[in-house]
Amino acid sequence: MNKPKILAFAGSHRKESLNKKLAFAAAEMARDAGAEVTFVDLKDYPMPLYDGDYEDENGVPDTTKQLFDLMLAHDGLLIACPEYNSSITPLLKNTIDWLSRLRHDGKPLAAFAGKTAALLSASPGALGGLRGLVHVRSILGNIQVHVIPQQNALGNANDAFADDGSISDTSAKARVESVVTTLVETTKKLNS
Amino acid sequence: MNKPKILAFAGSHRKESLNKKLAFAAAEMARDAGAEVTFVDLKDYPMPLYDGDYEDENGVPDTTKQLFDLMLAHDGLLIACPEYNSSITPLLKNTIDWLSRLRHDGKPLAAFAGKTAALLSASPGALGGLRGLVHVRSILGNIQVHVIPQQNALGNANDAFADDGSISDTSAKARVESVVTTLVETTKKLNS
Amino acid sequence: MNKPKILAFAGSHRKESLNKKLAFAAAEMARDAGAEVTFVDLKDYPMPLYDGDYEDENGVPDTTKQLFDLMLAHDGLLIACPEYNSSITPLLKNTIDWLSRLRHDGKPLAAFAGKTAALLSASPGALGGLRGLVHVRSILGNIQVHVIPQQNALGNANDAFADDGSISDTSAKARVESVVTTLVETTKKLNS
Amino acid sequence: MNKPKILAFAGSHRKESLNKKLAFAAAEMARDAGAEVTFVDLKDYPMPLYDGDYEDENGVPDTTKQLFDLMLAHDGLLIACPEYNSSITPLLKNTIDWLSRLRHDGKPLAAFAGKTAALLSASPGALGGLRGLVHVRSILGNIQVHVIPQQNALGNANDAFADDGSISDTSAKARVESVVTTLVETTKKLNS
Repeated sequence: MNKPKILAFAGSHRKESLNKKLAFAAAEMARDAGAEVTFVDLKDYPMPLYDGDYEDENGVPDTTKQLFDLMLAHDGLLIACPEYNSSITPLLKNTIDWLSRLRHDGKPLAAFAGKTAALLSASPGALGGLRGLVHVRSILGNIQVHVIPQQNALGNANDAFADDGSISDTSAKARVESVVTTLVETTKKLNS
Repeated sequence: MNKPKILAFAGSHRKESLNKKLAFAAAEMARDAGAEVTFVDLKDYPMPLYDGDYEDENGVPDTTKQLFDLMLAHDGLLIACPEYNSSITPLLKNTIDWLSRLRHDGKPLAAFAGKTAALLSASPGALGGLRGLVHVRSILGNIQVHVIPQQNALGNANDAFADDGSISDTSAKARVESVVTTLVETTKKLNS
Repeated sequence: MNKPKILAFAGSHRKESLNKKLAFAAAEMARDAGAEVTFVDLKDYPMPLYDGDYEDENGVPDTTKQLFDLMLAHDGLLIACPEYNSSITPLLKNTIDWLSRLRHDGKPLAAFAGKTAALLSASPGALGGLRGLVHVRSILGNIQVHVIPQQNALGNANDAFADDGSISDTSAKARVESVVTTLVETTKKLNS
Repeated sequence: MNKPKILAFAGSHRKESLNKKLAFAAAEMARDAGAEVTFVDLKDYPMPLYDGDYEDENGVPDTTKQLFDLMLAHDGLLIACPEYNSSITPLLKNTIDWLSRLRHDGKPLAAFAGKTAALLSASPGALGGLRGLVHVRSILGNIQVHVIPQQNALGNANDAFADDGSISDTSAKARVESVVTTLVETTKKLNS
């Protein structure tokens, strides 16, 4: 069969974002595990804060449509999201909410329904952003994404990455790899 | 390939439990969708309230071991659970917690890890028990169960079942069938 | 003692936002219950999507500081928030996350810690936005807001408001009033 | 005014339960903070797993009625609950569900509505049982308990207690004291 297609991105687009680094490192692992992977930076898909009046006047932003088309062209999502006040980032929630306004072939939630997803998180602290993933998981599940039960929160992430972008610590790396490999395998099976 | 094996049960074992009826009706649908289905009544697997002292003295109950073996012999779970005070029933939580004490081939959470599951709920009220499933989903996900995003809460369930145990209302029936069919398909694919 | 000071706002700033109407009607009720109430429209406090790079370069927006000062001058929050994809709106999450960047007298989370809050939701559908409040409640609790257990989700809200902005249906009105009165009483007691 | 009355107990009744020790130590702190405190061991209030058929035949157990009367006679709850599979213990959920069957003066949820509560957790591991409290908090909030936002999860609890039952580590002790003191103050104010 064809390679499963994975779209990888982070819920933050700060230049030095630890979660962007993590999504990037995980994307490489997904390639090694046999997937075709596209890494995107949400910086390149700027959208205004969702507002019904804005949508009524201007429609859905072009950046939303571009990301929507990318979502349609992929089978699974690899998302690294920081925890802001114990929950999802406004950036990721805003992106999801805009994407949920578009249909494909008349089908609602076409960007999400039936996709697989794996969740990762990185943070400078010890917990690694674990609590934020609870809300991200719940939101994605409610829009029909098959979020795999495995996830990983990478703590002390300021020191986690080598110069080439890979995860230095062997056991931390293995934990992320295990999540990523499971995503690739699950996506392969569910799309067979 | 072989038929996917589904274990169906309810989170209540009251004689006239609406969720037992729903699990039973859903089990029949899973058979129609190509699965091999075992329906069990938790009444037949009585366990004391979990207590570490009890376990130290008596070990894990035989009923837990029997249900554990059944879990090992199945690929997916079809669970109908009522909502008690906006959450899981003590019966289902207690059963899960006892089962989680047993290992297979040294592996923890062997009753759960890698299984698929679909969640249903029935209630006499309008909401159908939706809030309880949030906790059940979170608990199962945390013990590595692949809970499919689709679920159904059957409201006004006192009048929902025909004499032969099937769901009378055509559209309610179709919604449950859609969840059950997705579970069977997902289980088939993930175990291929 | 002095009147408790309540700040009322909605998690949406659409012109015809049902939640803005609900927050406005509830603000009036809070006045009747003996509070001093300020109603604000988040439209008047526009903030960019939170981004650490933006903050590093530009600092916290003036609008955030203005809203922060307003928060400091009030004892309780009355928030009506729509449900977007089963969760909080990006607007409300973004506002909370920006506000959480400011300290008062060196204290973190000064806009939130020790405040009381009541949550309301309005939606055109039957459920009224109940699921979204679960995340809002969890987020506010984690930043030390005393969210009262009472809440109300106003369903079928398209037809709920009279021309003068009050809630037409007597029993729906009474349910909202009960939440608002409890907020005012609780705020009064906790600040005595 | 009168002293606030606090009922303290743990969600486990194992003889050497860390959470029982924590509830006991916290009860002492609540006394020091000016409350009248009753400590109970759920071991002394054994109840069968909730089952509607059992209730139909036998009514509510006497132990439930005794604990219910105790709840009515107190203003606030101090609960230390371990995390079982990322959620509430069957013992605590079962106790809550039985208690919720009884009314006082015709009022439902009389054991809970209007009470304050503080949540603590102890565990031998690093996280201290934090995830379990999320479900306990959500359940109590839904039955109208005013759960204060402050909580504490005591990690590495095997080594946390001195021979006299107090918490040895000064900073861990201070964190628990801060939660307990806030509970006592809040209960005092809300019952003034």
